[in-house]
Amino acid sequence: MQNLLLVGSMAYDCVETPSGKRDNLLGGAASYIALSCAALRCPAAVVSVVGEDFKGSYLEYFKNHSIDISGIQKIKGEKSFVWKGKYHQDLNDRDTLATELNVLENFKPNLPDTCLNPKIVVLGNLHPNVQMEVLNQLQSQPKAILLDTMNFWMSNAPKELQKIIQKADILTINDHEARELSEEYSLPLAAKIIQKMGPKVVVIKKGEHGALLFYENEIFAFPAAPLEVVCDPTGAGDAFAGGMAAHLQKCEEISFETLKQSIVLGSVMASLTVEKFGPENLFDLKIDTIKERLQLFENLTHCNFPSLFS
Amino acid sequence: MQNLLLVGSMAYDCVETPSGKRDNLLGGAASYIALSCAALRCPAAVVSVVGEDFKGSYLEYFKNHSIDISGIQKIKGEKSFVWKGKYHQDLNDRDTLATELNVLENFKPNLPDTCLNPKIVVLGNLHPNVQMEVLNQLQSQPKAILLDTMNFWMSNAPKELQKIIQKADILTINDHEARELSEEYSLPLAAKIIQKMGPKVVVIKKGEHGALLFYENEIFAFPAAPLEVVCDPTGAGDAFAGGMAAHLQKCEEISFETLKQSIVLGSVMASLTVEKFGPENLFDLKIDTIKERLQLFENLTHCNFPSLFS
Repeated sequence: MQNLLLVGSMAYDCVETPSGKRDNLLGGAASYIALSCAALRCPAAVVSVVGEDFKGSYLEYFKNHSIDISGIQKIKGEKSFVWKGKYHQDLNDRDTLATELNVLENFKPNLPDTCLNPKIVVLGNLHPNVQMEVLNQLQSQPKAILLDTMNFWMSNAPKELQKIIQKADILTINDHEARELSEEYSLPLAAKIIQKMGPKVVVIKKGEHGALLFYENEIFAFPAAPLEVVCDPTGAGDAFAGGMAAHLQKCEEISFETLKQSIVLGSVMASLTVEKFGPENLFDLKIDTIKERLQLFENLTHCNFPSLFS
Repeated sequence: MQNLLLVGSMAYDCVETPSGKRDNLLGGAASYIALSCAALRCPAAVVSVVGEDFKGSYLEYFKNHSIDISGIQKIKGEKSFVWKGKYHQDLNDRDTLATELNVLENFKPNLPDTCLNPKIVVLGNLHPNVQMEVLNQLQSQPKAILLDTMNFWMSNAPKELQKIIQKADILTINDHEARELSEEYSLPLAAKIIQKMGPKVVVIKKGEHGALLFYENEIFAFPAAPLEVVCDPTGAGDAFAGGMAAHLQKCEEISFETLKQSIVLGSVMASLTVEKFGPENLFDLKIDTIKERLQLFENLTHCNFPSLFS
């Protein structure tokens, strides 16, 4: 039985960033989430869909790295989902050049028997109805449903999006999207509004400026790693969610403390992701590399607070 | 003898922000830096210039709050410096509507005898030549010269700016300015370039996204307080510098550790400043209010790092 269920797209990405251009990279939310879990040596099952053109070697990689791929449908005679995007110098800003849905158009998730009672579910960005269909197939209530989404659904499927947000325990969202979803500019107020929509926990991802965790009435702020070169931010948010989920699945409880730690792990995985194109840096990631990045964050944030008026 | 010397403009500010509009607020870098020190009960001396129209009650306030005002020249028959600005919804972005230099036009700083051997000097934003004139009058090398400047001088007095930057131990600068000064987009690379210009320590202020401290090869990241309402960001950077200086003047040495703590204190003072218009919140600030804000930051950033692969 699988404790951690990951759902999302698998794709071929073509990206252009100030560092260069790459075609046919492995892409899609589920790919990054799963690669992040695999790098953290965390077993998980993926539910997704790919076309006949999808490289068998990618599926082999997952299989060989603790990822159950029995929930990935391969559709004969059809092509995989393709996303093409271009980033500007401010890497928080990107233009989508093309979205070819292909197999994603008619994707009906079908959970294998081993995936009907997961402890943690990560719903990567997909149509909210597809995300809901996954929840409908579950036989028991997971300890945590982590939902990721994006602004596209706020404009194109607002009612369906509200329904799935209501079911989520943890919503990860970027700062622009948090402002759009809540119609509120102040992020702490935006988070409060979103918490009232359902999720007890809201994580606002701010790219190079780090992340904010809102848990009940408490807030935790964590910076991003100040990297000298950020090559390609694609998938960083998904690798972040993967890091969070990998940590939470091994914790006894979902508390402010364990959520903070999951943000740290998410930040570690996101910072490793953006250093190379696509998910290149996540394949065959050494344990020592991950430990070193964790140490970098500890050095970056450690401080003995001053005492005042003493 | 004064250990802490503060130099900068004193002004009347007229500001418009999404929260409203106020005229004739006490403004100027030296005012905010000094109010920040006064709030932290830290003695300091101010060198500045005001016109005949400058309210005596402001000078009285400083005198009654551990601030030596004997270096503030009051020019008869002339008007104080006036700045008018308008902020947009993204409060990191502002338009200067008017700058009436008045007494600042011909300001020649004149250090009182008690101010010739300070331990710490804070050079608030002014023409680099005026900042240099202050250093020229010193009789001994301070432990630290903290320099603040802005993009205006990068375009209008680049050579003079380079000379004063070369003399600085600590440069505080915002992210846009760091990119402009270094001609480098990546902030860690920008900081390295600026360090080569002279200052061993570079502090990049990112407004609502916090601050980065670069000390030799080490980096410390500290978030801003996620405030529900930010009323007016004017002077936040100066209050930040005041908080830093107040902490450093009482430390035995300027080390990575004491600099980190000074960033914390700076962030505390900046976050208090932006909650009201102008420096309103800094007057008669209660010790408990400052302690509570420090506690807020401790709660916001405290984390027991997870252990990996154990």
